[in-house]
Amino acid sequence: MRKLKITELNRISPEDFKKAEKIPLVVVLDNVRSLHNVGSVFRTSDAFLAEAVYLCGITATPPHAEIHKTALGAENSVNWKYFTTTLEAIQELRQQGYVLAAVEQAENSISLDELRLENKKYALILGNEVHGVAQEVMNLCDFCIEIPQFGTKHSLNVSVTAGIVIWESFKKLTNK
Amino acid sequence: MRKLKITELNRISPEDFKKAEKIPLVVVLDNVRSLHNVGSVFRTSDAFLAEAVYLCGITATPPHAEIHKTALGAENSVNWKYFTTTLEAIQELRQQGYVLAAVEQAENSISLDELRLENKKYALILGNEVHGVAQEVMNLCDFCIEIPQFGTKHSLNVSVTAGIVIWESFKKLTNK
Repeated sequence: MRKLKITELNRISPEDFKKAEKIPLVVVLDNVRSLHNVGSVFRTSDAFLAEAVYLCGITATPPHAEIHKTALGAENSVNWKYFTTTLEAIQELRQQGYVLAAVEQAENSISLDELRLENKKYALILGNEVHGVAQEVMNLCDFCIEIPQFGTKHSLNVSVTAGIVIWESFKKLTNK
Repeated sequence: MRKLKITELNRISPEDFKKAEKIPLVVVLDNVRSLHNVGSVFRTSDAFLAEAVYLCGITATPPHAEIHKTALGAENSVNWKYFTTTLEAIQELRQQGYVLAAVEQAENSISLDELRLENKKYALILGNEVHGVAQEVMNLCDFCIEIPQFGTKHSLNVSVTAGIVIWESFKKLTNK
């Protein structure tokens, strides 16, 4: 099995990315502390053509050398916007008709393997590394997606959580 | 939507993890440089009850403070084994009847959304951050899984790749 060369991957340019059709998905980071996680979410959002990343509260914004280390330039292709509070971000998304889905472990959450998405616009809200999505933000979401987990640790890394849920959303929004 | 407390998550102890039934999946790291990536793979393997993580070549091994930072103790629950070369790891897995799947971008790869797993034991081989899975390792694998990607960057972060592919494998091996 011959590995493909980078030139054979047919990736698009940042200019073509801006013009490309996106999936109707905004990724909202609610006070994510780690620059590594922010960079990784940009890289994943680039791969799956997410519409935008909304950076809220203490979440750092580009340009930043540490974000660039993991984003590797995806912070320039993917649209992003900063909000002082996550509540402002979700109020704006709500007004624009987005369905708000927290990614958390909560009562009445939907297990990711049972997630169904309709022909609507969605926002995925991912929380702080220690505290998760703030309860006041949870209270304003339409539903909660939970990744079923069976080991000893209470949660996955934020970058990994984002990767898994964006991938599942991408498949469902593009009917793969 | 009330968030669950850590005590409500019903996670198992490291002792119970050792005894728990695992999914027939070994995650092989082929010369992964970043300790953050190694730690994250442990944490994901813990969540989805992977059988073991095989650390090869320059891949660091526990105990290590930097691995612990992202593994958060999962390096103690998940079984692991070190091999000087990845070829030794895959030879041993082959002898034990594992089907070997590289996670790469290669000719004739299977797109992750079309992956089908049978009632067999699988090893997922993930490669170095810059060079990917070595071609000599690819040559000995049974098939290659590729995560379809549509943005500007040529690949996802190793931790994220591992998260997405282990999640899909978990679903398929447990019929979710």
